[in-house]
Amino acid sequence: MSFVGGVETGGSWCVCAVGSCDGAIVAQERLPTTDPQETLSAIIAFFRRAPRVEVVGVGSFGPVDLDPRSPTWGEVMATPKAGWRNAPVARALQRALDVQVVFETDVGAAALGEQRWGAGQGVGSLAYMTVGTGIGVGLLLGREPWHGISHPEVGHVRVPHDTARDPFPGSCPYHGDCLEGLACGPALAARWGRPAEQLDPDHEAWPLEAAYIAAGLANLVFTLAPERIILGGGVMAAPGLLPRVRRELENLVAGYIQSPALAPGLEQYLVAPALGDDAGVLGAIALACAGSAYAEPRARP
Amino acid sequence: MSFVGGVETGGSWCVCAVGSCDGAIVAQERLPTTDPQETLSAIIAFFRRAPRVEVVGVGSFGPVDLDPRSPTWGEVMATPKAGWRNAPVARALQRALDVQVVFETDVGAAALGEQRWGAGQGVGSLAYMTVGTGIGVGLLLGREPWHGISHPEVGHVRVPHDTARDPFPGSCPYHGDCLEGLACGPALAARWGRPAEQLDPDHEAWPLEAAYIAAGLANLVFTLAPERIILGGGVMAAPGLLPRVRRELENLVAGYIQSPALAPGLEQYLVAPALGDDAGVLGAIALACAGSAYAEPRARP
Repeated sequence: MSFVGGVETGGSWCVCAVGSCDGAIVAQERLPTTDPQETLSAIIAFFRRAPRVEVVGVGSFGPVDLDPRSPTWGEVMATPKAGWRNAPVARALQRALDVQVVFETDVGAAALGEQRWGAGQGVGSLAYMTVGTGIGVGLLLGREPWHGISHPEVGHVRVPHDTARDPFPGSCPYHGDCLEGLACGPALAARWGRPAEQLDPDHEAWPLEAAYIAAGLANLVFTLAPERIILGGGVMAAPGLLPRVRRELENLVAGYIQSPALAPGLEQYLVAPALGDDAGVLGAIALACAGSAYAEPRARP
Repeated sequence: MSFVGGVETGGSWCVCAVGSCDGAIVAQERLPTTDPQETLSAIIAFFRRAPRVEVVGVGSFGPVDLDPRSPTWGEVMATPKAGWRNAPVARALQRALDVQVVFETDVGAAALGEQRWGAGQGVGSLAYMTVGTGIGVGLLLGREPWHGISHPEVGHVRVPHDTARDPFPGSCPYHGDCLEGLACGPALAARWGRPAEQLDPDHEAWPLEAAYIAAGLANLVFTLAPERIILGGGVMAAPGLLPRVRRELENLVAGYIQSPALAPGLEQYLVAPALGDDAGVLGAIALACAGSAYAEPRARP
């Protein structure tokens, strides 16, 4: 049995694991995300103790540089997170561990994990959206997560914003009222004065939240018409929110795009993730199993 | 020298051609689009007179059914154009001419033609947007035009609509103020009381038009980050409009997505089509040359 490694780097926590390509995890550790040097040292120490691997998949918070021809490949780019801008995540692991690193966004990795073992099995074209501290989307349009001149940044699309209904100006430091600025967790907290998890299920926050998320998803459907959309993240844990988003999305899309995939109710089309808390690290393992044109070869001795 | 056929079916005119896969056209004819039976008969008559071909590419106005497993493959779907709903365009040509038909949207075909011979040469991922009677987008994300459960319908995405600045409710019969409803040619005519080509270059119509188109394009960049965008169609012929859209798009995108492709000014990123009036039919010929998983085999004798 041969194993591969997976690392999910998040804003607060990193999860490292070693597992097999049937999705079984044989070693796992959760580390706080502090400064890059300390965090990367802890990740490297985990892999030195764990069963030996030749490939490590990394699903990273972003934005990240995924271009293997770029000198900053495998680094986190314009992040507000202290110390992490241009931290050489992939190359540090590659050099210290003498492994091939497959580097991807956290949502690209999660999409791949859900396609391999979760709610996206058997689905060729898939969008995975997470609504939490930010809004991110991973797109599988073929064998691997889609990148153009950048990875997707669907959180930053603009959607209609009726300032009479919702005078909140949006929380995105770059764009104000982009989708993320209107609908991420911190936007909810700033608009309503308390965190999303303290808002009653009957609060007026939720119809508005569902409308924004559905607007973003409708634009994704009109652009790419993926076979399925997986919608997760901390905010989506709110009771009743997923069915609300389904109804809004159906109102926005159905009748114009005709497909058996959009059967009434959208219960089979817009679904929750199936991998739960392990989605990120399983996605990183899936990356390592899939290999990738975006990986650099192992460092030479 | 072997030839292939191409047909562009448009709302007012159809163009048929026979040409070679280096882009040379050896026979061409322009026919009015009337009812499906008369129009298809005229197309068939053209190919019976023209040099013999084995493959015909068709770029059709839409929405169309592109799923080769569907009983309505090769038909125009929910169109307001009288008589054309469920007209069996592809199968009629296939049967009458004993050819393989490669069936695509008009914009998908045009994208392929521009990639092969025009403004998209050497570009791997490409979006082609036309702003005219409607707004359509063809996406090349790999070897052939992208389809998910449908072809792209990017004209129907929602963009921010400031009703204080622009009280026009939008002209889309399905969505009102979607991108097409706000920015297509008929929307301009309805908003300002005269056709786009009669609006002075200094008219307040143009900054607004540029803002809507750029909002749609920015969402496309945040979603797919294509390597290049080609922007054509009758409305884009307005003097100064393309540079205005470039400026707006740069304001909306640049600084967040970092890529050498987005060099300041966007002159190399957002470009006009290069194939002019022949784009549609050359795209149809490019379809036939490329072949496609979306083609059905030739009808059996």
